[in-house]
Amino acid sequence: MEASNFEKQISFIKEIDKLKYIQRKTSLFNSTRNENDAEHSWHLAMMALVMSEQSNEKVDLLKVIKMLLIHDIVEIDAGDTFLFDTKKDHNNTEEELKAAKRIFGLLPEDQAKELIAIWEEFEAAETAEAKFAKAMDRLAPMMQNDSNDGGTWKEFNVPYETVIEKKEKIKEGSEAAWGYGKGLIDKFYQK
Amino acid sequence: MEASNFEKQISFIKEIDKLKYIQRKTSLFNSTRNENDAEHSWHLAMMALVMSEQSNEKVDLLKVIKMLLIHDIVEIDAGDTFLFDTKKDHNNTEEELKAAKRIFGLLPEDQAKELIAIWEEFEAAETAEAKFAKAMDRLAPMMQNDSNDGGTWKEFNVPYETVIEKKEKIKEGSEAAWGYGKGLIDKFYQK
Repeated sequence: MEASNFEKQISFIKEIDKLKYIQRKTSLFNSTRNENDAEHSWHLAMMALVMSEQSNEKVDLLKVIKMLLIHDIVEIDAGDTFLFDTKKDHNNTEEELKAAKRIFGLLPEDQAKELIAIWEEFEAAETAEAKFAKAMDRLAPMMQNDSNDGGTWKEFNVPYETVIEKKEKIKEGSEAAWGYGKGLIDKFYQK
Repeated sequence: MEASNFEKQISFIKEIDKLKYIQRKTSLFNSTRNENDAEHSWHLAMMALVMSEQSNEKVDLLKVIKMLLIHDIVEIDAGDTFLFDTKKDHNNTEEELKAAKRIFGLLPEDQAKELIAIWEEFEAAETAEAKFAKAMDRLAPMMQNDSNDGGTWKEFNVPYETVIEKKEKIKEGSEAAWGYGKGLIDKFYQK
């Protein structure tokens, strides 16, 4: 007998508990304690919730929040890839797509399809919602680095130009967030 | 000069990082590692996202998710109060209201008002959204306890009747979730 929708949803909810063990390179504010993907996803959803008026274009807030809540779930299988990793491409890997299909595939079929589509929309970064969600995802670690005397910029000796290159896409989602974020980068690298 | 909306939003985002340090009594699935409020809030928002069809009444999903993302933020000042604490009332304390006013008060005034109102609506547990959100908040630790050989029920010797009394309100938000949750309680206490 096939599992009910309810049973499938419970299986998914249990599985994604694993996101709490995925460690990011960035640390909490004013701290050396690494952030995990689950608390990171919560923080980004909160950022979108209070900063949606900072988006360049009007956005469907529920969709943005869905994107941010689920955007790292593939890392349960594929692991966290560091933005400044020079060897591995950060996004859209085959491994991540396989992970999305396995993990969201625990849900009833219509829900699995919806969440895979939302995750792919986020990764493609073409819609207003995806551009704004990506801006939040890029801004958060800059604020953390700013509070941690350079954080990962310092720890991994990332050149100024590389940070600018990787981060300036923020302006596609939010000119205001980029104005603020660029100021944080300049402040650190001028020291 | 008064701070801009953007600056106020950034202050709030920095402040709520502290939620990641608030430890709950419950542990992650199949683990002894305590859960923190931020990752807990993420998990509940995900539960609402995939289980909203299990609500007794049709709900505004964005409002439910907002409730769950913010519901524990007051604990930054007021601390986590354990559901089975026999000395301290779990909800609606003066201390929590003061915390809500201070923390949400970092935001622009209209946003502060909106989030305080949503938090109060959650606490009052009268609307369809609040009842469903509360059901998710009550169900999650039961699933964690089930995966941890009784978890906090065992650790604090909570009597069966007390668990039922504290948890049966789940049915006001979701009969389906209560059917499942009661099964978890019965399974543990029959051992």
